Amino acid sequence: MLDSIKNIEDLKKIDQEELGFLARDIRQFLIQSLSKTGGHLASNLGVVELTIALHYVFNSPEDKMIWDVGHQAYVHKLLTGRRKGFKTLRKTGGMSGFPKRKESKHDVFETGHSSTSISAALGMAISRDLKGENSHVIAVIGDGALTGGMAYEALNNAGRGHTNLIVILNDNEMSISENVGGMSRHLNHIRSSKDYLRAKEGVEDVLKRIPAIGGQLVGAVRKTKDGVKTFLIEHTLFEEMGFTYLGPINGHNFNDLIEILENAKEMKGPILIHVKTVKGKGYKPAVENPSSYHGVGPFDIKAGVAPKKAGGYTFSDAFGYAMVSLGEEDEKLIGITAAMADGTGLNHFEKQFPKRFFDVGIAEQHAVTFAAGLAATGFRPVFAVYSSFLQRAYDQILHDVCLQNLPVIFGIDRAGLVGEDGATHQGIFDIAYLSHMPNMTVLSVKMPEEMEGALRYAKRLNSPVAIRYPRGTVKLDPKYQLKYDDVRMVTLEEGQSVCLLATGKMVEQALRVREALLDLGIEAAVVEAPCIVPMDEEGIQTVAKTYDYIFTMEDHVKKGGFGMQVGAFMLEHGLKAKLHNFAYKTGIVEHGDIPSLLESEHLSVLDMVSTITEMIKEERA
Amino acid sequence: MLDSIKNIEDLKKIDQEELGFLARDIRQFLIQSLSKTGGHLASNLGVVELTIALHYVFNSPEDKMIWDVGHQAYVHKLLTGRRKGFKTLRKTGGMSGFPKRKESKHDVFETGHSSTSISAALGMAISRDLKGENSHVIAVIGDGALTGGMAYEALNNAGRGHTNLIVILNDNEMSISENVGGMSRHLNHIRSSKDYLRAKEGVEDVLKRIPAIGGQLVGAVRKTKDGVKTFLIEHTLFEEMGFTYLGPINGHNFNDLIEILENAKEMKGPILIHVKTVKGKGYKPAVENPSSYHGVGPFDIKAGVAPKKAGGYTFSDAFGYAMVSLGEEDEKLIGITAAMADGTGLNHFEKQFPKRFFDVGIAEQHAVTFAAGLAATGFRPVFAVYSSFLQRAYDQILHDVCLQNLPVIFGIDRAGLVGEDGATHQGIFDIAYLSHMPNMTVLSVKMPEEMEGALRYAKRLNSPVAIRYPRGTVKLDPKYQLKYDDVRMVTLEEGQSVCLLATGKMVEQALRVREALLDLGIEAAVVEAPCIVPMDEEGIQTVAKTYDYIFTMEDHVKKGGFGMQVGAFMLEHGLKAKLHNFAYKTGIVEHGDIPSLLESEHLSVLDMVSTITEMIKEERA
Repeated sequence: MLDSIKNIEDLKKIDQEELGFLARDIRQFLIQSLSKTGGHLASNLGVVELTIALHYVFNSPEDKMIWDVGHQAYVHKLLTGRRKGFKTLRKTGGMSGFPKRKESKHDVFETGHSSTSISAALGMAISRDLKGENSHVIAVIGDGALTGGMAYEALNNAGRGHTNLIVILNDNEMSISENVGGMSRHLNHIRSSKDYLRAKEGVEDVLKRIPAIGGQLVGAVRKTKDGVKTFLIEHTLFEEMGFTYLGPINGHNFNDLIEILENAKEMKGPILIHVKTVKGKGYKPAVENPSSYHGVGPFDIKAGVAPKKAGGYTFSDAFGYAMVSLGEEDEKLIGITAAMADGTGLNHFEKQFPKRFFDVGIAEQHAVTFAAGLAATGFRPVFAVYSSFLQRAYDQILHDVCLQNLPVIFGIDRAGLVGEDGATHQGIFDIAYLSHMPNMTVLSVKMPEEMEGALRYAKRLNSPVAIRYPRGTVKLDPKYQLKYDDVRMVTLEEGQSVCLLATGKMVEQALRVREALLDLGIEAAVVEAPCIVPMDEEGIQTVAKTYDYIFTMEDHVKKGGFGMQVGAFMLEHGLKAKLHNFAYKTGIVEHGDIPSLLESEHLSVLDMVSTITEMIKEERA
Repeated sequence: MLDSIKNIEDLKKIDQEELGFLARDIRQFLIQSLSKTGGHLASNLGVVELTIALHYVFNSPEDKMIWDVGHQAYVHKLLTGRRKGFKTLRKTGGMSGFPKRKESKHDVFETGHSSTSISAALGMAISRDLKGENSHVIAVIGDGALTGGMAYEALNNAGRGHTNLIVILNDNEMSISENVGGMSRHLNHIRSSKDYLRAKEGVEDVLKRIPAIGGQLVGAVRKTKDGVKTFLIEHTLFEEMGFTYLGPINGHNFNDLIEILENAKEMKGPILIHVKTVKGKGYKPAVENPSSYHGVGPFDIKAGVAPKKAGGYTFSDAFGYAMVSLGEEDEKLIGITAAMADGTGLNHFEKQFPKRFFDVGIAEQHAVTFAAGLAATGFRPVFAVYSSFLQRAYDQILHDVCLQNLPVIFGIDRAGLVGEDGATHQGIFDIAYLSHMPNMTVLSVKMPEEMEGALRYAKRLNSPVAIRYPRGTVKLDPKYQLKYDDVRMVTLEEGQSVCLLATGKMVEQALRVREALLDLGIEAAVVEAPCIVPMDEEGIQTVAKTYDYIFTMEDHVKKGGFGMQVGAFMLEHGLKAKLHNFAYKTGIVEHGDIPSLLESEHLSVLDMVSTITEMIKEERA
């Protein structure tokens, strides 16, 4: 049946009774396709019926759908003519795993980070009203994303007015990790309450009567809205915020979904539809273990995803073990995550020290100021977080931690390129947004084995410290391992005239560039800067006086990065060496595998070698 | 009576019946003292009884009080031995207008930006529990601050657990401007509902019985908590989040306040006490016009604050009028503020175009993504915001606006030093946190008369643009006014050998430095950079080739600032001029008048002249 759907016009021709077959086909397609390419599986299997129903009832792109976070938009992509794209899903130059405006007119707003959809949808709804148009705007947001404060800010603003806006709460009782907080409990309360279920039946009765009113519908509904509400759940948090609450309904039942969406279409003001879905629906291993099937690599459909590769000692693992090790020695050590206990390796710490572990949900702002409160009263909180998600707590790091010089440690995972998730997830801004914060120290770890030393060093400092480290792992000869007794620049390989001044993951690349240069008769030194802020000024002085050419190398955007800071310092101090910064040019690095992304930025080993030799040639000419 | 209070121990000796006299004395003191020094008046007059009651019932600093935003902590300062400090309130080297840990052990957490208190308080409460201590943690937060998402994140996290925590909702039905949103309506609903009032009486009956239970109190209350709740308001938003809700009570009645605080002290888990206060209470002009008495300069007590000085054409005024002017030409122009319509001058736009004006409350994150939604559908939103408050939307600017290259304009008011409000409010990080964002343009306006031109230029660009401008005004000879037809560097005054390369407000200072240097026989050029990002690379090339010495001047922290970017570019391109950056050193600039703050940073005209002449001497030697 999927074959007959070339675009959403084809979808609308299908009988409602037949949609179940389409859903079955789509699930089959997703499982098969993702078993080859990898991608976000469980979240997409959960919204098959919801997405079909949305496109069945509404008219995209006149009606606008915004997918919060965006990794659950595969079915939407499939229904809007992008079936072929799944072969290149998340590959360099291929189809993105997130909504992309360049890809389709049906992707009206790009997402990636959590909790943005209602704000954007409200903007579009106001836009429609000002234009005097008559379309619909729908935000689809998961229960996990509702723990983010900006979703609440948006609900608060939408709830005050009369702008038509439909928010679909896709409630799978789980964000990426397990869901937490008062909101979660509130939803659970709604789900389980008999009153709510009875109320729901009441609503349905009322809503069923609505179409009969025909043309006079709108006024009638508006007038009876308070009446309707007496049948509805009186006091959900959403009602308190000014929304009309409908639900909860079964998100896998087409009749329920289509009926409630059709009715919502006719209602006025802000509406929240509470849809219950099952993550991984239709693929048993994913239902049983949705967390493991959130993001997958290629897998065998029968066997399921392989357990985590043994031997891959990642930076996250190293961080987790280091936290356990330090936690044993110091009972003041606290571990904090924003819904990423597994991803950051903090689950090890959680297991060992459950009382000193806090998962605050997708709430990075709170996480940081919560940590500041702990630090102000004698504890040593460590917030483990992905680089691009920490962006959301910029103000809290600066205002609540750094201005007060509180000893909060940030374990910044996924710093640098992350690859397949693309531009919204690359962690390539953290040096720039942390460097100017008062009292801040920024360390950059190049191999997992150094993590414990770095964490110990950070803890000794008694002031704000960020430790950045990349996704995955880096394998280096143990002789290069630093002990982090101090963090001054260190020469890993001697050389003449040319110095590769690298930090973090780029040290590995520097060593490879050095090898390649050796073949060309150039013996380049490799100097590592384990500490980016404060700058090792003496180290730069030495390097600049020792070598004629300095090539900085960092896994970060150029503007505001390590190399730029080195450059500014050199000029200010009259240091004459020739400097070139290897770094990402614009800050937009799309999805793909990291080697090809480096190539696209002209930062492969080959690119670097050629830039270096060119510069030397030029200078000598 | 105030004379007898040297510290909070003295306070506790006073009979409860006598506290009213103390409140009267404190009001008198505040009005008299602030009429001389200026400061935050209305908010502090509103919390006189509340603050006295808190210190009467609780034991600071063992019991910890966190003042959200912090400008309402004057009474707290007065009661904790800082009466003398009021003479130097907000003056250089004097007492801060906000809580400061250095000032007193009773200031346990520093605040300034909105909505941080509950997160910090939860951190401290967890800290207390882990230590096995038995004290109280109290966050005092206004209804305005509750519109900020991070307050919700904190409520959500506090509400999930059983940690004892007291949140005082200081509800004066008004944030700095008027309050907005579903939350506001919700509070209003509570306030006006007869059921709630009846419920309140029920609560009081229950609570009155509590002390009788004596030692067994805690368990008893816990067991009967559900029972108690049936007397309470069943379904406030706070209850839904997991809090026990008490209130609303009259925040000017000592008996009510002390009773409810004493009872809250004995209760378990997270508690929210809803206290109704009147901003400006006790000073009629302030009650009648609390917005004008929020922050005041010196004033005549009988006459009240003077109406806004005529003739002071501020950057905010200019921005407001420019918005009106452009709004008349283009009906796609939208004005957005986060509770700062008056402060940003956007009130002019509001009056003229109410349908295209949006005050989202203290919700900068939502404001930016809401703007992105508008921009994605053809509108031209302008978000007018103070520099230091925009920090809270760093991720939204980067992720929702810049990655999608959406034409949102940021009118960044209070960029640079703001003075009396101190470190948390200085707008000295915006160049650093905006420069590395893809597609971003950053303009820097030096005189109000240029505002309309700059705004028109920004609008022509059709991509994200930030226009930064300082607090207050700058008066310059009209011959220096730029038209903003283009934004390349421009020579305002010719010179030889020495170039003062200034941006924004610092152009004025550059012209004064030039004058002073002329007396010493040095003819320095003044070159203005109206556009910081993207950099005018040709301009820098020219400047670097024309002059031997370049002194960059900016109203911003050095790291990541304009001068540093110029330096990095010069080194990379082998430009040999000698460069020095005049900028703020550490990023922490405390409160005070701006001339003295510049002195403390060694950036007065005199300091600059001496730095410049020294450098020239050194180089020539």
